[in-house]
Amino acid sequence: MNPELREAVARLREQVATLHGELVRYGLVAWTAGNVSARVPGRDLMVIKPSGVSYDDLDAENMIVCDLDGVVVEGDLSPSSDTAAHAYVYRAMSDVGGVVHTHSGYATAWAARGEAIPCHLTAQADEFGGEIPVGPFALIGGDDIGKGIVSTLSGHRSPAVLMRNHGVFTIGRDARAAVKAAVMCEDVARTAHLTRALGEPLPIAPADIDSLYQRYQNVYGQQGAGSTPA
Amino acid sequence: MNPELREAVARLREQVATLHGELVRYGLVAWTAGNVSARVPGRDLMVIKPSGVSYDDLDAENMIVCDLDGVVVEGDLSPSSDTAAHAYVYRAMSDVGGVVHTHSGYATAWAARGEAIPCHLTAQADEFGGEIPVGPFALIGGDDIGKGIVSTLSGHRSPAVLMRNHGVFTIGRDARAAVKAAVMCEDVARTAHLTRALGEPLPIAPADIDSLYQRYQNVYGQQGAGSTPA
Amino acid sequence: MNPELREAVARLREQVATLHGELVRYGLVAWTAGNVSARVPGRDLMVIKPSGVSYDDLDAENMIVCDLDGVVVEGDLSPSSDTAAHAYVYRAMSDVGGVVHTHSGYATAWAARGEAIPCHLTAQADEFGGEIPVGPFALIGGDDIGKGIVSTLSGHRSPAVLMRNHGVFTIGRDARAAVKAAVMCEDVARTAHLTRALGEPLPIAPADIDSLYQRYQNVYGQQGAGSTPA
Amino acid sequence: MNPELREAVARLREQVATLHGELVRYGLVAWTAGNVSARVPGRDLMVIKPSGVSYDDLDAENMIVCDLDGVVVEGDLSPSSDTAAHAYVYRAMSDVGGVVHTHSGYATAWAARGEAIPCHLTAQADEFGGEIPVGPFALIGGDDIGKGIVSTLSGHRSPAVLMRNHGVFTIGRDARAAVKAAVMCEDVARTAHLTRALGEPLPIAPADIDSLYQRYQNVYGQQGAGSTPA
Repeated sequence: MNPELREAVARLREQVATLHGELVRYGLVAWTAGNVSARVPGRDLMVIKPSGVSYDDLDAENMIVCDLDGVVVEGDLSPSSDTAAHAYVYRAMSDVGGVVHTHSGYATAWAARGEAIPCHLTAQADEFGGEIPVGPFALIGGDDIGKGIVSTLSGHRSPAVLMRNHGVFTIGRDARAAVKAAVMCEDVARTAHLTRALGEPLPIAPADIDSLYQRYQNVYGQQGAGSTPA
Repeated sequence: MNPELREAVARLREQVATLHGELVRYGLVAWTAGNVSARVPGRDLMVIKPSGVSYDDLDAENMIVCDLDGVVVEGDLSPSSDTAAHAYVYRAMSDVGGVVHTHSGYATAWAARGEAIPCHLTAQADEFGGEIPVGPFALIGGDDIGKGIVSTLSGHRSPAVLMRNHGVFTIGRDARAAVKAAVMCEDVARTAHLTRALGEPLPIAPADIDSLYQRYQNVYGQQGAGSTPA
Repeated sequence: MNPELREAVARLREQVATLHGELVRYGLVAWTAGNVSARVPGRDLMVIKPSGVSYDDLDAENMIVCDLDGVVVEGDLSPSSDTAAHAYVYRAMSDVGGVVHTHSGYATAWAARGEAIPCHLTAQADEFGGEIPVGPFALIGGDDIGKGIVSTLSGHRSPAVLMRNHGVFTIGRDARAAVKAAVMCEDVARTAHLTRALGEPLPIAPADIDSLYQRYQNVYGQQGAGSTPA
Repeated sequence: MNPELREAVARLREQVATLHGELVRYGLVAWTAGNVSARVPGRDLMVIKPSGVSYDDLDAENMIVCDLDGVVVEGDLSPSSDTAAHAYVYRAMSDVGGVVHTHSGYATAWAARGEAIPCHLTAQADEFGGEIPVGPFALIGGDDIGKGIVSTLSGHRSPAVLMRNHGVFTIGRDARAAVKAAVMCEDVARTAHLTRALGEPLPIAPADIDSLYQRYQNVYGQQGAGSTPA
């Protein structure tokens, strides 16, 4: 690797390791069941969590660098068992810079019933632009999960998909945006669950959902700061 | 600013930054979705959170000072995207010194169904003096949210309003009182949810609600200590 | 106070202040809504939390010493607004050395429906010896709450009572035992709630409940260690 | 003890004490109601928690060493009141190196209804290979609990059993694996609860459950690392 690439990878190793802490903080993961990756911009490379390593033990050094076929380029450990799914997304969706996978409980409950989360909250309209869709049932170990993610999210506003009987995958322009989507996905899945548990939500007009989505994507946060709103 | 005003603003910057930690501690906010503001006493100014900045990164220095039309007076970042709503409340309700906004899950579930939280708990009678009311659906980006808050809370005992399909706004004589109301609103919304999930709550007589409210507002805490009960 | 009493009070000030941390740790309290007290052994005195003071700010120094009519003997702050209830319990039940009050959510939901928690868990049989009973609705500000606690718990195995539309009071031979009862009350209230939410619990035979209770009260923990099992 | 055994026991004392921290971290235990043990490899000995001691106060020094009849070999305190159940499992199942017991809320709710947790999640297929079974009601104080665990788990893929009206016991090749099973048991019990609360889960084909189980047991984590995947 040339020095510029070396530095970009070092930065992403640090960022990806640190972002796993957000999955823990928001209670999205139990034991080792969740992972974050980042694409190395302009390269056919990604940085991803090693498989089965405790979140306490993650640091920049033990992150794994793979190519976009999931072959390890740097790292002594095996990469996440979900590496093939992450890699497939990066190959198929060129504007995706980060991917996150969790089994966060409320969202996964919707996934286990195969129900999309309908949009009855302004926060969901802001971040997801409408419902959070369900993807197909797919077995691990090949491209099926990746294909299911891509076919569901392509052309969809939502950066999150509920993979049937499995859990959540989210995408973003970078790893931080994908982590934010995972956090917000569980948050709206929970509020939607609590809403439905005692009755029926009131609808939001589709035009209002559109308006909220457009505004949030273009006005919220520190515009021009050159990075994902924190 | 004269030295006295300078000092008052510095104190409020510190207080408002710190109070966001209570929203995190009580699990009322995910990512950056909640904010606290304080009126600068005797001035047409308010101190509020910057937009889209992580709670970990808040401190006295990056708080924003706005006038009561939401125009930034001090601060390098954009103010909270909810600034217009906070500002409207301060303009319309002269005795309000603090405003808080959250999407806390249990309270927001009541808001998504458009249901006021009926008063079946002595703690709710104490703090809210009866039901916690629902405000109208309103889009962000103008005065509609502010108007909805003010029209719902004016003349109402409750310092909290459940904005339909959106979340909670609370008011208080200062920012700390508004944060307390946000914490208690989620607490009673949760207990009310759990109560209803398995059956029907027993009623409290209206006269008992009145009695509890009067006592709590006048006897609880350290009276004469010159500050909000902690 | 003589030196021996002085030392006993100092020890209890420390213990009572510290035990409030357990209420926070187990999520039994929001803001300032819960309190612990301890009887000074052999004296008509109790140590209790000051009213409306944040749990972060509690220490041995700001605890309040009252007599058993609730009159402050030592302390600059007002005692807990629940002092009259604690004091009544100590006057009426001579073997009680500690009292705790919370509005913990699951237990309070049972209280808001006026439903005792039936005993379908071995852990509940261990600690409570059967159902956790409901006490009457009572207004704060006199002896009504205390009377309701005492009339419900006298001759009952349970160290916890669900005061209707209000919350939980627990008793113990010392403050630590009362805090343990408050923690276990919320734990079994939660599991009982989750059980009932999806169906009906299987019964435990009354003779088995008796057997579990007798064993736990006499065998569990470090017998002969001269203190409450931790 | 010879030096080699001495060292093995010291290592297990440290590990068992530390692993209790995972029960606390994942909210599986209240007060002192849960315990971890480890078999001393190749010896008729086990290391287990002392009875009724707070998790904060556990360290390598106060762990108890017992023989596989539950008789204390080293330690000043009484061993866990569940020692007989742990010991029975080690006597009956020679490949078990660790046992964990909790009353974790969601799993215990299934146990209180006497309902096995059906397998509608890929994560459950991975770790448990199908449903999580229910064991019989059994009183503490003899071999009944141990017998119930062994009769339910012998020949079953699941490392977790829901003991009726009681709680969870898990087994593993070592204590860490048993703790992981306890954490994942509560996680899937919770998601299964949330799923069922609003409707019915979609089925996973039995062949897919088999395939997921085989893969996870043989491919996940750092193979050949000589230890349990973290």
